[in-house]
Amino acid sequence: MTTIFQFQEWLTNHSERAETALDSLLDSAQTTPKRLHEAMRYAAQGGGKRIRPLLVYAAGSLGDAKAQALDAAAVAIECIHAYSLVHDDLPCMDDDDLRRGRPTVHKAFDEATALLVGDALQTRAFEILANAQCEVDVRLLMISSLAAASGSRGMAGGQAIDLESVGKTLDLAGLKQMHAMKTGALLSCAVELGGIAAHLNPTQMAQLQKYSTALGLAFQIVDDVLDATADSQTLGKTAGKDAAANKPTYVTLMGLDYAQQQAKELQEAAIASLTDFGSKADALKDLALLVVNRAK
Amino acid sequence: MTTIFQFQEWLTNHSERAETALDSLLDSAQTTPKRLHEAMRYAAQGGGKRIRPLLVYAAGSLGDAKAQALDAAAVAIECIHAYSLVHDDLPCMDDDDLRRGRPTVHKAFDEATALLVGDALQTRAFEILANAQCEVDVRLLMISSLAAASGSRGMAGGQAIDLESVGKTLDLAGLKQMHAMKTGALLSCAVELGGIAAHLNPTQMAQLQKYSTALGLAFQIVDDVLDATADSQTLGKTAGKDAAANKPTYVTLMGLDYAQQQAKELQEAAIASLTDFGSKADALKDLALLVVNRAK
Repeated sequence: MTTIFQFQEWLTNHSERAETALDSLLDSAQTTPKRLHEAMRYAAQGGGKRIRPLLVYAAGSLGDAKAQALDAAAVAIECIHAYSLVHDDLPCMDDDDLRRGRPTVHKAFDEATALLVGDALQTRAFEILANAQCEVDVRLLMISSLAAASGSRGMAGGQAIDLESVGKTLDLAGLKQMHAMKTGALLSCAVELGGIAAHLNPTQMAQLQKYSTALGLAFQIVDDVLDATADSQTLGKTAGKDAAANKPTYVTLMGLDYAQQQAKELQEAAIASLTDFGSKADALKDLALLVVNRAK
Repeated sequence: MTTIFQFQEWLTNHSERAETALDSLLDSAQTTPKRLHEAMRYAAQGGGKRIRPLLVYAAGSLGDAKAQALDAAAVAIECIHAYSLVHDDLPCMDDDDLRRGRPTVHKAFDEATALLVGDALQTRAFEILANAQCEVDVRLLMISSLAAASGSRGMAGGQAIDLESVGKTLDLAGLKQMHAMKTGALLSCAVELGGIAAHLNPTQMAQLQKYSTALGLAFQIVDDVLDATADSQTLGKTAGKDAAANKPTYVTLMGLDYAQQQAKELQEAAIASLTDFGSKADALKDLALLVVNRAK
């Protein structure tokens, strides 16, 4: 792995690159209808850790990816992530007022606008990939991957299972399946998009898949740990929500200590699956450390 | 134009073809999560005139389109249309209980499920196009066209303008712009997808564009005429809604007689723009007659 200093530099550079790409690939707030485009930017540009774009860039560095393919993929997956947050926060779903330390979109604008913001951010994600300046087959593979990860057999399906689980005694296997769809699929997709853009071979893609499956599970366990232990101000969103909603979490099912231990082991497994890539995979390895050791 | 008998046969055949394609390209109601997939089918398969799929097939017959490209396009555009109806009907938008003579999705299921149904139908539309069994460049052009027509500069943007127009004195130009985005863009896109699949040249695509712009405007004028004159049972949705919401319509701005005359003139203009295609365009011409003379 790189030294901490080198990774911090990589992180700063690629976070900035993601912000620049977002700014350039989203419609300007002056585009008609202005209020909708302003709200789309509010939703997509309101901070956040940009984990998914960073995973795209890190996986893309494993091969000969075109810069524009990676930028398009980074923005597209962040648009999907942002749309899912906007819709999750709506009153008919989680009914949240706070996101990334700011009012949620339906609070800052209104519910109908928030609905359209989510809808239009999803559309924009696929439009950006379709129009990316790279090979046609790379674009199609990326669109297909993103759709599979975010649709009814991926993220949206995980949300539906989550809705049905409130007040039920979901067991660990059920919880894992739900999270694998709800958050894991999109995290894995970020890594996959980078791998597609980098023209990796099937063996390499399978290694990446192992990495991202472990990472996705670790990510969610840490999310549950933070939800149970951190305060709302640190998180930038309402803490202790899952417990209040009587939702099963890794912490309630495993206990806090075991959950933390599991996250650590998954992080190690994720890193181990990248051995064949050597130092080219340093950014991916460091991202696994970052995900597990984050404070929010 | 074809005789009435021939067109009726074409209509029956291609309506059935659209239903068969929808049935085969939507996930089965047994796919996990079952309730979500059941609700997606409820939303997309609940009848409707299938105008957009019919336009895809009719435009596709102008050239050498692959059958699978047209089926994918027909289903994809109907998924987008269905998603927009499900979200439009939500309490934070039009708050409608009735659609195509049945309870709306959030009434038959629940609000959160309806939100996810719309989200996932949109995703599925792009996934179907990405995986269609036809040339990669045709697939990419279709995805790009569908995204442009349905996103924030198309259908979703038109919805946002519609939201802002309630209680305002939108003039005729403003009303036309709103409808061109809200409904016209997707109708035009249906024709365009058929043309892309059929490998038409730019001159031919421009002729199709003229046809679909006139058709889209005629479609909306007839919608407003029917909203003002027909009853809810005939329409299969709540009639007189626009007047009740104090929304401007072509009928309130033009008067009923002039609106009906305009629809007729637009229908004639649409048909005239297809002259160069000869009898190959019979289905498109007959669809223009159908749109203007429909009773619901």
